[in-house]
Amino acid sequence: MAIKAPFQLLMLLGIVFLASSVCVSSRRSDQDQDQENPFLFKSNRVQTLFKNENGHIHLLQRFDKRSKIFENLQNYRLLEYNSKPHTIFLPQHNDADFILAVLSGKAILTVLNPNDRNSFNLERGDTIKLPAGTIAYLANRDDKEDLRVLDLAIPVNRPGQVQSFLLSGSENQESFLSGFSKNILEASFNADYEEIERVLLEEHQKEPQHRRDLRDRRRQQGQEANLIVKVSRDQIQELSKNAKSSSKKSASSESEPFNLGNRDPIYSNKFGNFFEITPEKNPQLQDLDILVNAVEIKEGSLLLPHYNSRATIIVTAVEGKGEFELVGHRNENQQEQREEDEEEEEEGQERSGQVQRYRARLSPGDVFVIPAGHPVAVSASSNLYLVGFGINAENNERNFLAGEEDNVISQIHRPVKELAFPGSAQQVDRLLKNQKQSYFANAQPQQREEESQRKRGHISSIYGGF
Amino acid sequence: MAIKAPFQLLMLLGIVFLASSVCVSSRRSDQDQDQENPFLFKSNRVQTLFKNENGHIHLLQRFDKRSKIFENLQNYRLLEYNSKPHTIFLPQHNDADFILAVLSGKAILTVLNPNDRNSFNLERGDTIKLPAGTIAYLANRDDKEDLRVLDLAIPVNRPGQVQSFLLSGSENQESFLSGFSKNILEASFNADYEEIERVLLEEHQKEPQHRRDLRDRRRQQGQEANLIVKVSRDQIQELSKNAKSSSKKSASSESEPFNLGNRDPIYSNKFGNFFEITPEKNPQLQDLDILVNAVEIKEGSLLLPHYNSRATIIVTAVEGKGEFELVGHRNENQQEQREEDEEEEEEGQERSGQVQRYRARLSPGDVFVIPAGHPVAVSASSNLYLVGFGINAENNERNFLAGEEDNVISQIHRPVKELAFPGSAQQVDRLLKNQKQSYFANAQPQQREEESQRKRGHISSIYGGF
Amino acid sequence: MAIKAPFQLLMLLGIVFLASSVCVSSRRSDQDQDQENPFLFKSNRVQTLFKNENGHIHLLQRFDKRSKIFENLQNYRLLEYNSKPHTIFLPQHNDADFILAVLSGKAILTVLNPNDRNSFNLERGDTIKLPAGTIAYLANRDDKEDLRVLDLAIPVNRPGQVQSFLLSGSENQESFLSGFSKNILEASFNADYEEIERVLLEEHQKEPQHRRDLRDRRRQQGQEANLIVKVSRDQIQELSKNAKSSSKKSASSESEPFNLGNRDPIYSNKFGNFFEITPEKNPQLQDLDILVNAVEIKEGSLLLPHYNSRATIIVTAVEGKGEFELVGHRNENQQEQREEDEEEEEEGQERSGQVQRYRARLSPGDVFVIPAGHPVAVSASSNLYLVGFGINAENNERNFLAGEEDNVISQIHRPVKELAFPGSAQQVDRLLKNQKQSYFANAQPQQREEESQRKRGHISSIYGGF
Repeated sequence: MAIKAPFQLLMLLGIVFLASSVCVSSRRSDQDQDQENPFLFKSNRVQTLFKNENGHIHLLQRFDKRSKIFENLQNYRLLEYNSKPHTIFLPQHNDADFILAVLSGKAILTVLNPNDRNSFNLERGDTIKLPAGTIAYLANRDDKEDLRVLDLAIPVNRPGQVQSFLLSGSENQESFLSGFSKNILEASFNADYEEIERVLLEEHQKEPQHRRDLRDRRRQQGQEANLIVKVSRDQIQELSKNAKSSSKKSASSESEPFNLGNRDPIYSNKFGNFFEITPEKNPQLQDLDILVNAVEIKEGSLLLPHYNSRATIIVTAVEGKGEFELVGHRNENQQEQREEDEEEEEEGQERSGQVQRYRARLSPGDVFVIPAGHPVAVSASSNLYLVGFGINAENNERNFLAGEEDNVISQIHRPVKELAFPGSAQQVDRLLKNQKQSYFANAQPQQREEESQRKRGHISSIYGGF
Repeated sequence: MAIKAPFQLLMLLGIVFLASSVCVSSRRSDQDQDQENPFLFKSNRVQTLFKNENGHIHLLQRFDKRSKIFENLQNYRLLEYNSKPHTIFLPQHNDADFILAVLSGKAILTVLNPNDRNSFNLERGDTIKLPAGTIAYLANRDDKEDLRVLDLAIPVNRPGQVQSFLLSGSENQESFLSGFSKNILEASFNADYEEIERVLLEEHQKEPQHRRDLRDRRRQQGQEANLIVKVSRDQIQELSKNAKSSSKKSASSESEPFNLGNRDPIYSNKFGNFFEITPEKNPQLQDLDILVNAVEIKEGSLLLPHYNSRATIIVTAVEGKGEFELVGHRNENQQEQREEDEEEEEEGQERSGQVQRYRARLSPGDVFVIPAGHPVAVSASSNLYLVGFGINAENNERNFLAGEEDNVISQIHRPVKELAFPGSAQQVDRLLKNQKQSYFANAQPQQREEESQRKRGHISSIYGGF
Repeated sequence: MAIKAPFQLLMLLGIVFLASSVCVSSRRSDQDQDQENPFLFKSNRVQTLFKNENGHIHLLQRFDKRSKIFENLQNYRLLEYNSKPHTIFLPQHNDADFILAVLSGKAILTVLNPNDRNSFNLERGDTIKLPAGTIAYLANRDDKEDLRVLDLAIPVNRPGQVQSFLLSGSENQESFLSGFSKNILEASFNADYEEIERVLLEEHQKEPQHRRDLRDRRRQQGQEANLIVKVSRDQIQELSKNAKSSSKKSASSESEPFNLGNRDPIYSNKFGNFFEITPEKNPQLQDLDILVNAVEIKEGSLLLPHYNSRATIIVTAVEGKGEFELVGHRNENQQEQREEDEEEEEEGQERSGQVQRYRARLSPGDVFVIPAGHPVAVSASSNLYLVGFGINAENNERNFLAGEEDNVISQIHRPVKELAFPGSAQQVDRLLKNQKQSYFANAQPQQREEESQRKRGHISSIYGGF
């Protein structure tokens, strides 16, 4: 990665903070990044559902098991699918609705219906809903690049639990067809069981016991061999026939993919771009009440402090490095303990909780959650690319707390500014007008940087200064 | 019941399997039918809410208390109402929405509104929503046949709990009117309490203590005497005046009953018929997001393997005998134990659970639940009549896994068939085309039956062969 | 308060019942008013979230922590806001939707949006939805009268928990802006931290430790000093500019306040008035599925027995005194114990629970909950003013059990009246027609009062007679 000149020092200094990059201001107790910051899910908080030489599937820890503050996320799971060039994820269906977002690479997704099938060419930014129960398969059609797909799963049976039904049997797994008895299969296919077994099912019965034991052990370790398999260039060619691409014009199809970048960004300047598809804009997202967004923050830039009025956003860091700061209450995380012990008292904490900063460095694969109402800001130490799924998305508004446009603070009546802030209304207005940028800004404005470097000496960096 | 010739032997042999009719193939551990098959609720898993010589009301065990896999069914309860000819179920209201489906017999249902009332003649297949809080009474208007009505209840107060408010006081129960104080009753009816008591309430106060104790004991055993009472032919006549029947033309009234059989079946051939009313077709089912269906499987026939994409179906066997096979995962039932002990590990089971067959014989009164995404097949050893309520019904699709039409497997790309199945694409296609029927088929195709009888000797039956 | 002649005696006698004003008829066990009547929340069942010389905020106990019968109310909280003349509640936002109803006084509510602001003059009966995340401030614009506002809060993050984010820092609390690090704040406002701190934040860092400890202690006692502050007449004037009043014509604006009294009452006579805005009438209430009503019961009058078909109503006694009677089942309150111990048995109680009267005197500030389906009547010993929020409001119907109009009992078929009640159909009809009033009636009709006084001697009162 080419680190641009003014940030080289930052990157070097950044190393200092790797060990304790979550922190609070000096008058608050320090917190261990991953243990104590419940809004952060480092990339190791995943479980490998499947892994072989062709790819893997990771499932993020349940939000509601991590912390009680995510009770409202109990029926949402985040998965990441990763596969090598010229491979295919074999047909299956799940008891969950999926929202797929392609993070990188090139795919062909085929979706089966009782009477037809639809194939779609997907690339970075393409997003599509896969309704629960849909049989689908996904090929990496590129010659070189890995395919990475992020999935938000919303289970329809048990809250927070996804079950997959694999159509294909193989050495290490059974097709769900093999769950039916011989008699049902013979009557269903109007054929002898021997033929059905030979053509559709693997013949596990003939395996010696020790091999089946081995298979069971492997399965428990997520090492099933044949869920993601190699596929030839010719076979890819055949899948590509009639495959449609995401519409370049509209993001409003009932079933076709839409690209997050096809519409104009809702916020954009030289420091970053913010793309977002809301339920109001796309019918696929309406019944699930989900929004999807993609945010590019340029190296050395800042997504200005803001909060979402009603949506909770699950954000995945896809590329680049940076830092987020989220403002909550002091006892947000410990509250759950108290709740069980002394329920009456707990209620008293609701308003009296002091303001608390939750801060963490971001690396690719990290996930963080921004609950509704909680102010947040994100800075990039190298070009940062984030993809977010928003829950409870309808009528969500993003209120910015700084910047020239859409700054909700500037709307306050003058006398209330006087009463609310220590400065005079005039001072407040002058301060608010100092920032000429909107939405995104320079994370370390030049003039002040120089000045502050003089003042503070060697630790001046966007991660330092506390 | 007249058993048709080719199935007489099957029926006799069937007896052999009565004792252990839930089973798994030889390489899986056997399971005790009712204990181990969480999807089956034998007809004894009910509680008698009320019983006298005129009829009874049964309430099925809570789905979510039976197994954690039915967490999403916690606010649904299934009731069966049964009454003798010329009886009436006295006025009451409940804190639950009801979907009523008449299983057999002939009824007059009267629904009260503040300013009018509506009476409906109901018969087999008639279905109607009774909104929460509606005061209603239900008469068996037939001279000979018992009335059987299946109710799906969706409580509005406490999840999974239905409270009834009886308007009529009688020897063994109190009218809810008696819950008001004398003063309120006197002011409300602008009458002396003595008159109100004489005309509207039973005079329990005058009963000696031992009689009230007896009444309490009886009530706890569900033996209240006067909830279902005799009604004369003349009285039935008066109730019938202006009673409407279910519309023969449309199934889309806001408040009138619709008959499941009035519309053309969605699947039909000589082996069976499948009737279904979805929320999209009927406004009464829309806000509750429920579908109702009725399935007739002819003796010796099979409803082909299929799954519902997002609906969970609660199926009641009304008449006839048969068997269902449902494909789930090995640990579906035990998962709940593990969940509490070792939460982290539990998540790992989601995908690695092996395929498991859940199989059970069906007799009238049995209930089974088909969760979304789970493949199922049902065979009939005598003409089988099933009625189902589907939860989460909107946009549900039924994907068939065998049969000529609507077979989702036949939509798979040829190269993916090669990769997914052990046979060649050609072999797979040939096998899929062997079944000329769709949706329903012969449970034991003639030609193969003869052949297999030769091979396997005397145990060839649709319940045997394992 | 001027007590009208015929009720003076009642008031005197009423005192007798203050100590045990919840009771059941003689053949039922007495219940301690507050402990045993789960439907009643006396005005002391609140927690003080904030209090200073300018006003306070009270939060009612969680419904679902009080009793399991309110499981369906777990995501609803009731708050009351009270402030002195010429004060303002400083800008903040919450992670909850609010429905505000002004109980008394005159307010200016300002609601901020990213690009504009709206101010509204509010007075008694004005109601408005404040969507989650909206920054707002509320001034008492009156010279003399206290401002009282009732809030129903529906949290969007954690069920039943409301978090407030205060924009203004002050001596005893921190602005949420202070949760961001210096670097983020400097980059966001393009200004030095010193200026930001001086103009927007309080400088807590400079406080000695013992003062911060004191502040923490005070905060835990809800005694933050500066959430509600004095505001001058001139400042009020400035806030009033362009402030709109609730529309006098329609109650159907998307965002403007509506007055409960602007529409004709849905029930009205000389004994009382019943105003109600349902989700069908007002778009602000639609997505939350809430109704709001205001009931005036004149001294010595009775709101006739009725029940709500599907809504649960949370009623606050605002002014006056009275009594409510609610009819439930005997074990409604104890059920929860049993549930955990003997789950199977608990189900058996559902229908067999005997009728139970829950009765309580009402004073200003008391709250009672009327679950769906439960019959209720309310009498007034002095002019009683109630404000109610209804949950699950869409398609709710109110069924009256007495009175001339909308009396659901009068709709029963004659032969069913015979079967259901001890009296003949003729007697039942004659009794039902005795009450010429509808909805509201005299709580102690004159003619019978005289007669009953003769009969019963000195204990005849609307609270006596048992």
